[in-house]
Amino acid sequence: MQPAKQTQTLKASYIREILQAASCPDIISLAGGLPAPTMLPLPLIDKAIERLKDQPQLFQYGASRGLSALIEHLIGHYQLTGPEQILITNGSQQGLDLIARTFINPGDGVVLETPAYPGALQVFGLAQADIHCIKQLSSGPDLQMLEHAFAHNDIKLFYCVPDFHNPTGVAWSDSTRQEVALLCRKYNVALVDDSPYRELRFSGEQLPMMAHYYPEGTLVLRSFSKIAFPGIRLGSITGPEQWITATLKVKQACDLHTALPMQAVALDLFSQHKFEDHLTQLRALYSKHYQALSVALQKNLGGKSHFNPVSGGMFLWLEIPGHDAQQVASKALESGVAVVPSDAFYPNQNYHTSALRLNFSNSKRSQLRTAVYRLSGVLESLV
Amino acid sequence: MQPAKQTQTLKASYIREILQAASCPDIISLAGGLPAPTMLPLPLIDKAIERLKDQPQLFQYGASRGLSALIEHLIGHYQLTGPEQILITNGSQQGLDLIARTFINPGDGVVLETPAYPGALQVFGLAQADIHCIKQLSSGPDLQMLEHAFAHNDIKLFYCVPDFHNPTGVAWSDSTRQEVALLCRKYNVALVDDSPYRELRFSGEQLPMMAHYYPEGTLVLRSFSKIAFPGIRLGSITGPEQWITATLKVKQACDLHTALPMQAVALDLFSQHKFEDHLTQLRALYSKHYQALSVALQKNLGGKSHFNPVSGGMFLWLEIPGHDAQQVASKALESGVAVVPSDAFYPNQNYHTSALRLNFSNSKRSQLRTAVYRLSGVLESLV
Repeated sequence: MQPAKQTQTLKASYIREILQAASCPDIISLAGGLPAPTMLPLPLIDKAIERLKDQPQLFQYGASRGLSALIEHLIGHYQLTGPEQILITNGSQQGLDLIARTFINPGDGVVLETPAYPGALQVFGLAQADIHCIKQLSSGPDLQMLEHAFAHNDIKLFYCVPDFHNPTGVAWSDSTRQEVALLCRKYNVALVDDSPYRELRFSGEQLPMMAHYYPEGTLVLRSFSKIAFPGIRLGSITGPEQWITATLKVKQACDLHTALPMQAVALDLFSQHKFEDHLTQLRALYSKHYQALSVALQKNLGGKSHFNPVSGGMFLWLEIPGHDAQQVASKALESGVAVVPSDAFYPNQNYHTSALRLNFSNSKRSQLRTAVYRLSGVLESLV
Repeated sequence: MQPAKQTQTLKASYIREILQAASCPDIISLAGGLPAPTMLPLPLIDKAIERLKDQPQLFQYGASRGLSALIEHLIGHYQLTGPEQILITNGSQQGLDLIARTFINPGDGVVLETPAYPGALQVFGLAQADIHCIKQLSSGPDLQMLEHAFAHNDIKLFYCVPDFHNPTGVAWSDSTRQEVALLCRKYNVALVDDSPYRELRFSGEQLPMMAHYYPEGTLVLRSFSKIAFPGIRLGSITGPEQWITATLKVKQACDLHTALPMQAVALDLFSQHKFEDHLTQLRALYSKHYQALSVALQKNLGGKSHFNPVSGGMFLWLEIPGHDAQQVASKALESGVAVVPSDAFYPNQNYHTSALRLNFSNSKRSQLRTAVYRLSGVLESLV
C-alpha cells in the first residue's frame, strides 16, 4: 500500500533524528528543546504520583475535553469563561495538529513567520495548506509583508510564536502585537498563538498575549513541557467556544482523550504555591545559561557570527553569514557539538539565512562554553 | 473560520455523548465499552507507580516509536523481528487514525464490515475514504460480497475486527480468516486487524490472527485498554516495516510521542507473571457476566428479540425486529438503562438491522439482570 499524497512529502524531523545522535555521552547537545535535567519538578509531584493508585477513576475512560478538575483549575488560571473554551491535548504539538485537521482544507492559505518551527511546517504540510512565509524582524513579523500576504491571498490562519520564537528567540514588540491584531481583524484571519515559552521570560516586561488584543479570533496553544515535564505529553488549546467545539470533535475521533493519570499529576503540580517558585528558579537558571552562552559567543565568535539578544525562552539564533549551515552543523557534530542548521526551519530552499539554532536550557554552563569553543574551531577550519 | 470539509461531516460519537448521561447513579449503563471497575489491575502497578518519581528520564522527551524497554518486551510477546515492526500509540484509536492519515487519500476505497465500530467510521470519514460496507454473517464478513467489492472497486484497505467484533461480538471462523487472507492477497488489499478484544476469549479455541495468514499485508492494532487500563491511553500498531516507518513519521508530526510514564507502568504490568492470572480472572468474570445477561435475555425477551451467542469480548448484539432501535434506546434511558442503538454503527441510513449493543463487562450481574428487566418493560410498552 502506498502512503497517501500528503505523507509522501512529509519530512522526518531533523531535530528528532539528530537527538538520537546527540544522546551519545561525548556530544554536547544544543540541538533539542529539552528543559534543564536538574530542574524537572519531580520532588513536587512525589505525593501526586503516590496518590494515583488510590484513584481508579483515573484509569477508566474519561471525557475527551480533559480531566474536569484540571479544566476547572485552568479556567481560573487562564481567565476563561468556562470549559467550552478549553481542550486538553497530548502536548501542544497535538493541539496544533488538531487545529490544522479541524480547519484546513487542502490549498487553504496559512501564514507562518520564517524561520519557522519545524513541527508547524510538518503539520501544515500534512494538511496540504498553501503556506506563505513572512520574514521575521527583531520586533516580530515584517508587517508590510504580512499585510501584503493577507491582502493578496485567501489566508485562513496565521500561525505564530509571539513569545520567544522557536528558533529565533524573538519576542514581538507590543506595537507589533497590536498591529497584527488589527490586520487579522481587517482581513478576517484566525490567529494561532503557539505559546510554549511565554512563562520563560527572564528579562524585560511580560507583554499581553495576542488573545488580549484579538480574543474573538485567537486560538492559544500552551505546552506543559517547558514549565513542567515533556514526557507526560500535555498541553491545551483555548479560544472561542465554536472553534474549540469543532476541534474537540476531531480530538474524539483521533484518540478519545488524553491520559488521565498524567492530567491528575499536572493538576497537583499547578495547584501548589511551590510551582511558582519552581518557575522563578527555572527563569533564573535559564538567564544564567543564556548569559554564559552569550558571553562565550561574543568572546570566541565575535567577528564571525551575529545574534540578537533574547529575553527568555530556550533558544538563540546564531547567524553565520558566508557559511553553509548544514556543513557547519555536520562538522560540529564530528567535533562533539549538536546544533540545528537553519535549513530545518524553512519549508523550501529559498530565502535562507545561514544560521544555527542553539539551545541553552538543557546543557550546563560549562558545557555551553565548551560547545562554543568547539564551534569556534569548526568555523575556523571552514574559512 | 469555517471548519474544513472533512470536519463538517464528522459526527460526534453517540457513545461518548451518551456516556455522560449514563454516568448518573440511577442509570445502569450497558452503553460503553469499559472494563469491570473491580478488575482494574491497580494492585499490580503499585510499585511501578511509586518508582516513576525515581526515573527522571521518563519525564523528558522520548522517542516517537515508544519507550525502548516496552518495545523490546512487546517484540518478544508479539513475536516480531524487531523494533521496526512496532509503534506505540495513544490507545488503538490513535493507531487507527494514524493508519488512515498515513495511507488514505480522499476517495481511496476502504471496506468495513457492518454494523461497524463507530470510531472507525469517524476516522475513515475524516480521511474522506470511499467507504464500502460488507454485511457481517455469524462467521465473519459475507465473502461473496467481499470479493465483489474487491473485484469491482479500487479497494486499498479492509478494516476488520476478527475477534469479538464491536458491536456484534462475532469471532471469524478459521476458514473465513484463511479465505479473507486469500482475497486480500489476490486483490492486493491491505488488512487492518483491530484486535482490542482478542485476549478476552472465555470459551472456544483461540484462532490464528490475520497476520498469521497474511503477514505481508496486515497491520495489527492492539489496545491496552481492555486488558489493563483505558485511562492510560496506550496501544500499538505492528506490521510490515515499510508501513510502520511511514506511520511513525506521521505520529512524530502528530504529537511527537506517547506519554513515557504510562508506558513504563504498562511495561511493569506486562512483565509480571501475575498479569496472566489477571487476564484469566478477567475472562472468567466476563464469562459469568455474559451468562447472566444471556440467561436474563432468554427469560425476559425470548420471543421479542434475538442474539447470537458470543465467546468473548464485551458486547452482545440484540436484534429487535420490528422496533425502531433509536426509540427503544431513548425510552430505555428514561427507564434507567443506557444502550446503544444500531444506527450508531452504520455510516448511513441504509441496510439497517434494528438492534441494540449491550455491554456486559462494566456492570454487575445483578445490574445486568435489572437492566434486562427494564428493557423488557420498554419493549412491552412499545408493542
